[in-house]
Amino acid sequence: MTTILNQHDNYHQAEEAYGFPLIIKQLLNRAKIASTNQTISYADKVTYTYAEFFKRINRLANVLKNMGLQPGDVVAVMDWDSHRYLEAYFAVPMSGMILQTVNVRLSEDKVLYTINHAAPKALLLNAEFEPMIKDYRDDAPSIEHVIWADDAEDDDAGSEKAGSEKAELPDYVDGEYEALLAAASDTFDFPDFDENTIATTFYTSGTTGDPKGVFFTHRQIVLQTMASTLASALNAEGQGARYDDVYMPMTPLFHVHAWCWPYGATMIGLNQVYPGRYLAPKLVDLIEEHKVTLSHGVPAILQMLLKEMAARGRKFENFKLLLGGSKLNEGLAKAAIECGIEFMSGFGMSESCPVLSRAVFDDKTESMTLEDNLNYRCLSGSPIMLVSMEIWDENGQPQPMDGESTGELVIRAPWLTQNYFKNPDAGNALWKGGWMHTQDIACISANGTLSITDRLKDVIKSGGEWVSSLEVETILSFHPSVADIAVIGVPDARWGERPLALIVLKPDYVDTTSTDILALGHQAVERGHLPKYGVPSEVRFLSEMPKTSVGKLDKKRMRSMYSENLI
Amino acid sequence: MTTILNQHDNYHQAEEAYGFPLIIKQLLNRAKIASTNQTISYADKVTYTYAEFFKRINRLANVLKNMGLQPGDVVAVMDWDSHRYLEAYFAVPMSGMILQTVNVRLSEDKVLYTINHAAPKALLLNAEFEPMIKDYRDDAPSIEHVIWADDAEDDDAGSEKAGSEKAELPDYVDGEYEALLAAASDTFDFPDFDENTIATTFYTSGTTGDPKGVFFTHRQIVLQTMASTLASALNAEGQGARYDDVYMPMTPLFHVHAWCWPYGATMIGLNQVYPGRYLAPKLVDLIEEHKVTLSHGVPAILQMLLKEMAARGRKFENFKLLLGGSKLNEGLAKAAIECGIEFMSGFGMSESCPVLSRAVFDDKTESMTLEDNLNYRCLSGSPIMLVSMEIWDENGQPQPMDGESTGELVIRAPWLTQNYFKNPDAGNALWKGGWMHTQDIACISANGTLSITDRLKDVIKSGGEWVSSLEVETILSFHPSVADIAVIGVPDARWGERPLALIVLKPDYVDTTSTDILALGHQAVERGHLPKYGVPSEVRFLSEMPKTSVGKLDKKRMRSMYSENLI
Repeated sequence: MTTILNQHDNYHQAEEAYGFPLIIKQLLNRAKIASTNQTISYADKVTYTYAEFFKRINRLANVLKNMGLQPGDVVAVMDWDSHRYLEAYFAVPMSGMILQTVNVRLSEDKVLYTINHAAPKALLLNAEFEPMIKDYRDDAPSIEHVIWADDAEDDDAGSEKAGSEKAELPDYVDGEYEALLAAASDTFDFPDFDENTIATTFYTSGTTGDPKGVFFTHRQIVLQTMASTLASALNAEGQGARYDDVYMPMTPLFHVHAWCWPYGATMIGLNQVYPGRYLAPKLVDLIEEHKVTLSHGVPAILQMLLKEMAARGRKFENFKLLLGGSKLNEGLAKAAIECGIEFMSGFGMSESCPVLSRAVFDDKTESMTLEDNLNYRCLSGSPIMLVSMEIWDENGQPQPMDGESTGELVIRAPWLTQNYFKNPDAGNALWKGGWMHTQDIACISANGTLSITDRLKDVIKSGGEWVSSLEVETILSFHPSVADIAVIGVPDARWGERPLALIVLKPDYVDTTSTDILALGHQAVERGHLPKYGVPSEVRFLSEMPKTSVGKLDKKRMRSMYSENLI
Repeated sequence: MTTILNQHDNYHQAEEAYGFPLIIKQLLNRAKIASTNQTISYADKVTYTYAEFFKRINRLANVLKNMGLQPGDVVAVMDWDSHRYLEAYFAVPMSGMILQTVNVRLSEDKVLYTINHAAPKALLLNAEFEPMIKDYRDDAPSIEHVIWADDAEDDDAGSEKAGSEKAELPDYVDGEYEALLAAASDTFDFPDFDENTIATTFYTSGTTGDPKGVFFTHRQIVLQTMASTLASALNAEGQGARYDDVYMPMTPLFHVHAWCWPYGATMIGLNQVYPGRYLAPKLVDLIEEHKVTLSHGVPAILQMLLKEMAARGRKFENFKLLLGGSKLNEGLAKAAIECGIEFMSGFGMSESCPVLSRAVFDDKTESMTLEDNLNYRCLSGSPIMLVSMEIWDENGQPQPMDGESTGELVIRAPWLTQNYFKNPDAGNALWKGGWMHTQDIACISANGTLSITDRLKDVIKSGGEWVSSLEVETILSFHPSVADIAVIGVPDARWGERPLALIVLKPDYVDTTSTDILALGHQAVERGHLPKYGVPSEVRFLSEMPKTSVGKLDKKRMRSMYSENLI
């Protein structure tokens, strides 16, 4: 990077000027003045004001300090989405420590791996996860302090919980969360420090090899929070974030900072609800009770909501849902709209903090036909502010953004992990030539709409031609019998690879045949929507779809299940 | 500032990672992908697409480079609001040079002072302003290059303008803007550089002493642009910025970056209109023709619009106007609403890039009575994201935010000028104890609404008690005869100072007496809205109100006009 030295040395700071580092505590500046009476709720357990929230952040910082923790130390959290988690989102990095958001959906082995890799000194532990780390004293020796949280106890004990140490706490525990907070001072002077200080770390749940650690600085989180909320708010009424939204996450707080929305919601000063573990009836109860208007999640969450609302015979009202994580199929999209959910899609990755693009809703979108509108909502939107994207071919040559040319999506943004933690080889593969390589195959239209056509690893090469598995999945998903679908490439003696469709049928449609399903493929070929070689050679019906711990299609496992030539 | 060194030295950048400086070119990232077909218009003269705009930025950068200009050099612009000015907003700082936005409304002497103080090497000059700097070769020796722009010529010459050097150009001119651009390459590789590089400079038009130079870095402009657009967009429909807005500035581009909206509008990818010189009929024509939905200005501009619309017998539709610069009186506010203008107020300064606070419109605002709503719209809104504010008493003690306690407003934000250019004494007075001192007297309500009650210098001290001149002005402005009003403190033998009201009457109300006006003051005392000593001792009727070059009340001049004891 060139440094330009201004020829005039007169542009210097006044002696007592404040340089303003972009650190997480600054996200609270507006809310501290304008939002002290707004509220934060944890499921049906606790509701308090922002004024109380600010004090509790101070208390938590004092708890950590009193344990002897130092700036730079890692503090891990294993909890469902709670007010505690939100407090840790702020208090830990604001103390100069690093927040490790542990993915509790991983297998026990992998959770332990991530803990030993990040080496936290303290752990905020929801009692539900104790079995997962019961041998931590032997197996995870970095952990010197454990803060205990037990909502079940909380339900029993009622108002007595705060202040009184519980006899039944495990002996290795420093104390119970509420008791520790109650005993700590509610004032803490959070220092200023370099905005490039690491604030958070967590692990990608890749299907290959060990989980890889990503990490983000204060500056990166502040900038992602600003840009992502801005890209939302500019949308038309009913679709953009507003000052009077009520926010509830449905992407877990251990998953890529819940897309930084807990930071954004707090910055804006929204009323917020944290739902605990994601159970469909509870989620819907909370949405209805608190009049939640703003949320986000993966398509699997949307499916849960739709099923629950169908059972209740009700629709949502004034409910905005940003979807990401994996591509929505248009069948699900249609059902969502019919259920009153204003959903829109976005794109991001663990490595990107995460939001990179999201749907734009303006007057043009509003004048679309229903079909075009549905299709548009399933694409990945356009780059948010400050994000730069290119589509590269195999030789690293940028391709035109014409809605047709495909290639690997490469990105630049102010909030991309700068490496993998203690894994420079993987980091060097991620960052080549100053661009982050997403390993996603994409195309971008002339108006900037991003469409992810495949994972670099999932693309099918049939007779030398690329087949987009996502495209085939989308087409076949329109069959009314399809509950879930995956298309993978399987070895083929003649063509190299051929597409295979794996389908889970809806309960009422068990008589559906391969021919029924593939008829949609042949139709698409006739209409010019799919090349002939894109129609799968075969359909296999499964009772359950192989998925990863975060609910994504586990294509690696599927491929290994069908690794022999079919024909 | 403490620097926290993370104990793990593993959090380092991958070798080829991109660090992403917050520099102005990054504001174009989204628009380059998503907005190439959006348009930019200069009055009724030119309309082109963003695709063309990007090429023209490259051409302008090549023009500057071909002149031998270097990073760090200052490039001054003297122009009305034009597409050229927008191009300079990007091309100059993106080349690492410093854009000086010359306030052409200052007197010739002061313009020359600011030019000699900033010492630009090049000047983009609208022919209209030639008389103002005709002796620049002698008087402003720093200027080595002049780029000439002449819209009158443009109107005559029509399509021949580009490419052909005009014979009638003054001999000291390098060339005509369009001809120079046409001759330059449309590709330019804008380098990365330190985000703390100075991007812009301009001069405050204070009424005391010489104008003072402020300066802003790339980082500061990017952050102000993000935060200010976000604070707007989160507002309810009809009041917040949207992806489908059409933008036109009505705060000149030479005035505090037109509140950074030209940067914001381009970042979002809005259709934009630049109106040239502000003439009421033209402004209204452009708003109607281009269906402008988003603008900003000072109350004087609002007055111009209202008068023009009254003459046309029409109302605005779907027109959002952010007001700032000076406090709106509620009489004008009511007229604006009746004319269909969704106006809202904000607060900022030349020293603050400028936006610090703005009105929030949510469901609470919508349920206000008309009177409360009008009153709310005349206040200064609440702090935008990242802004920190305190109210200090004379001893530097923070006062409660209770809607009653007043004191000097002190601020922190990521976009405050870090000094005055070559004026460290003034800089040290501006920055004391890590806070920027606004010299505004303010109070902040429990929900964060900022109310500027006076300038530190304009506050009236009667019998040892403070009287807010703004408060008295607001109350008296409700009299139907009042076209313009100012209240100042004048020396008084008994009370130290007493308020004097200066009033310009509307043409149909010339018979109004002091007694008529002061009756409103006495009424306000009875209702408890004003202390008794707040009622002016006297009213003087003027034919014209003394104002500064930017249309603010020139209270310094007024005080000198009435500097002798009245009684």
